[in-house]
Amino acid sequence: MATDVISFSPPRGMRDFYPEDMVLRNAVFDAWSAAARQSGFDEYDACVVESLALLKRKSGEEITDQIYHFKDKSGRELALRPEMTPTLARMIVAKQGSLTMPLKWFTIAQCFRYERTTRGRKREHYQLNLDVIGESSVSAEAEVIATAAGAMSRLGLTGKHYQIRFSSRALLSELLLKLGIEAAHHAATFLALDKRGKITDEAIKTLLENEGVSPEAIPTIFALLEVETLEQARDMLGAETPAYQDVLAFLETLDAYGIADLMSFDISVIRGLSYYTGIVFEAFDTSEGLRAIFGGGRYDNLLGDIGGAATTGVGLGFGDVVIAELLEALGLAPATGDHAPDIAIGFMQDAQQLTAVRIATALRASGKGAHLALHAEKPKAFFKRVGKGTAPQAIYLGPDDTENGTARIKTLADRTEETVSIEELLQA
Amino acid sequence: MATDVISFSPPRGMRDFYPEDMVLRNAVFDAWSAAARQSGFDEYDACVVESLALLKRKSGEEITDQIYHFKDKSGRELALRPEMTPTLARMIVAKQGSLTMPLKWFTIAQCFRYERTTRGRKREHYQLNLDVIGESSVSAEAEVIATAAGAMSRLGLTGKHYQIRFSSRALLSELLLKLGIEAAHHAATFLALDKRGKITDEAIKTLLENEGVSPEAIPTIFALLEVETLEQARDMLGAETPAYQDVLAFLETLDAYGIADLMSFDISVIRGLSYYTGIVFEAFDTSEGLRAIFGGGRYDNLLGDIGGAATTGVGLGFGDVVIAELLEALGLAPATGDHAPDIAIGFMQDAQQLTAVRIATALRASGKGAHLALHAEKPKAFFKRVGKGTAPQAIYLGPDDTENGTARIKTLADRTEETVSIEELLQA
Repeated sequence: MATDVISFSPPRGMRDFYPEDMVLRNAVFDAWSAAARQSGFDEYDACVVESLALLKRKSGEEITDQIYHFKDKSGRELALRPEMTPTLARMIVAKQGSLTMPLKWFTIAQCFRYERTTRGRKREHYQLNLDVIGESSVSAEAEVIATAAGAMSRLGLTGKHYQIRFSSRALLSELLLKLGIEAAHHAATFLALDKRGKITDEAIKTLLENEGVSPEAIPTIFALLEVETLEQARDMLGAETPAYQDVLAFLETLDAYGIADLMSFDISVIRGLSYYTGIVFEAFDTSEGLRAIFGGGRYDNLLGDIGGAATTGVGLGFGDVVIAELLEALGLAPATGDHAPDIAIGFMQDAQQLTAVRIATALRASGKGAHLALHAEKPKAFFKRVGKGTAPQAIYLGPDDTENGTARIKTLADRTEETVSIEELLQA
Repeated sequence: MATDVISFSPPRGMRDFYPEDMVLRNAVFDAWSAAARQSGFDEYDACVVESLALLKRKSGEEITDQIYHFKDKSGRELALRPEMTPTLARMIVAKQGSLTMPLKWFTIAQCFRYERTTRGRKREHYQLNLDVIGESSVSAEAEVIATAAGAMSRLGLTGKHYQIRFSSRALLSELLLKLGIEAAHHAATFLALDKRGKITDEAIKTLLENEGVSPEAIPTIFALLEVETLEQARDMLGAETPAYQDVLAFLETLDAYGIADLMSFDISVIRGLSYYTGIVFEAFDTSEGLRAIFGGGRYDNLLGDIGGAATTGVGLGFGDVVIAELLEALGLAPATGDHAPDIAIGFMQDAQQLTAVRIATALRASGKGAHLALHAEKPKAFFKRVGKGTAPQAIYLGPDDTENGTARIKTLADRTEETVSIEELLQA
């Protein structure tokens, strides 16, 4: 039976992380956590299994098709979350009365998406999520972007390496209203326009017509995407509207953060998730043409929509796949991790084993990292093995050492050696 | 429709972690990682979604019933892993030729188990896994136990708080052979005996009879569980057999690690997983009567059984649920995390906002953690909010401050204040 054949590969689209793969992953996760904590974001987490009803309700149509879902034995419909925001919204609503707003929360969450086409795309990834809940001013958008830029900077990436394109669904809404398109059609219009480049304009036209947008309005909607500057948008609106002023304040705040030079207005940035209501943004590398590095936006209706008190929100998602590709392409991926133990300990014969154990135990108790051999080995085998970056220093015990009560601490980089008494080491 | 009702609770048996819950979780995870790295274990990871075939093949019968599983759109049978060892074995076999043995690997893995009865048991948990692959001597068992003891010690737990009971399936096998029970029946006998206390002895008898064990042998099998000391086992065996000698060497090594006093021989420790072949062990608290804190053992056939070259293995699993219960029961759970930013920054009016942003940015660039207010607030509201442990220091900017070009850095613990020039802060 086919199902009885055991494959040694992970399931299709899922990743194994061998120790050598953890070096880059830890570098990215550490940069994310450090930047988030430095900005005062509090860490939270939730189980990767979520109720399907919550996810269906609040994500975009495209994502809903791609959710891994299943029933438990009681018939509950469960799913592997494709994104963290609905879960965050659920958690906030559950404790809304007792939380002090605005909240700044972060998590590193594994998310799943079942994509049929697998041109290098994985079916799971990890994602830094930065969210600000309960802040209606654009200082929230600026803070999550500045924090993501802080993580980029920790990874060696600056404005030379990436740029952030932004737009505003609120501004687009104002423009659509000005064109006579009712607010009820806006959400569907955003999702249709977001497909531009992925499906034909003809197919987008059909989507808009099915949504009830009048066929005459459709060319004007496409024309909107030709708007190139904020000033053009303002001129079309005929005034400095609330959404326009928000964008100005957003840029002014980013300037105070020293990162206005990362930003460029791009009206075609819409984002695929249905819940965004305000500023939306996406970061792209400047040299490799990869998919978005991070992205996000404002979602002011999500908490109310799932049944909570109306509360504003801003979120940013930053996946681990594109950033890893970018760091590798730019030669910025770290070669070795920073978690190697301080010293490797080996021994020639079984007779020295317990002394080696005692030395390792004493060194560990003193706070040092000690990589202990688990069986006797020839000096050549020991030094060959530990010379591959196991530890910067090594002790190799032979019968002479234990007889004399001494151990030689070898520094592997320069092959220097220091002789110390074993007694002393045991009291370290 | 029932499925359209959105609940704000996580799915049954799954956990949300609010920021206040992360304090204890991070303390446990940090102790685990630090102890594992200090002993020279290399970190690895794999996706929580695993192929069902692999999991079915290698776990115990009980676990197989409790696996969350589902089909993907291509009909592949996938599952949420109930434990990490089969995945580890798969990863090792996939690269067996290029890996230098023995390997010492660790991971913190989320695992799922669908248990119908839910008396306080969760359906998911995180588990530290420490494994040594390719070491046939009991130094492997001793090293994983010493490393887990190191993690316990980092959490403030010593031999006063927990003890480790151990046995050896190899020794039990020698005893069963001595009683005339063929090796082919041993694995099933272990799994039946492991159920003792959970099901009636009568039910265990039926299990053994169904397995083909002769009814006359069954009372002698039960009598084995009355063996209280290693010496009794040796006397029954009539010689210092290989399994008996291994147990002695194991205890001698643990003595060199300084943790022999944690250990006690208990022939009834068997473990529920079918793949164990040698020494098995479980740690229990001495005061609260909780479930096992950590446990593990030797699995010398697993890699060969799934299709790899025959390679020995020893593993230890240490879950996050029982240790959290124990730390809380003993009053050892940390009250606050150690990730608070250094300083909180607030402001009275919109006019001071951009200065506050610039100060926060400069402090962050200098490596400090800065928690920045996102809108103007009254001094009372600001200090009430940040006084709840947000940060040890605070700057609150009013119009006078920006006019004078000075900021007052308040140390919240003793309410002392230092006045510095904003210019100076910006160049920090």
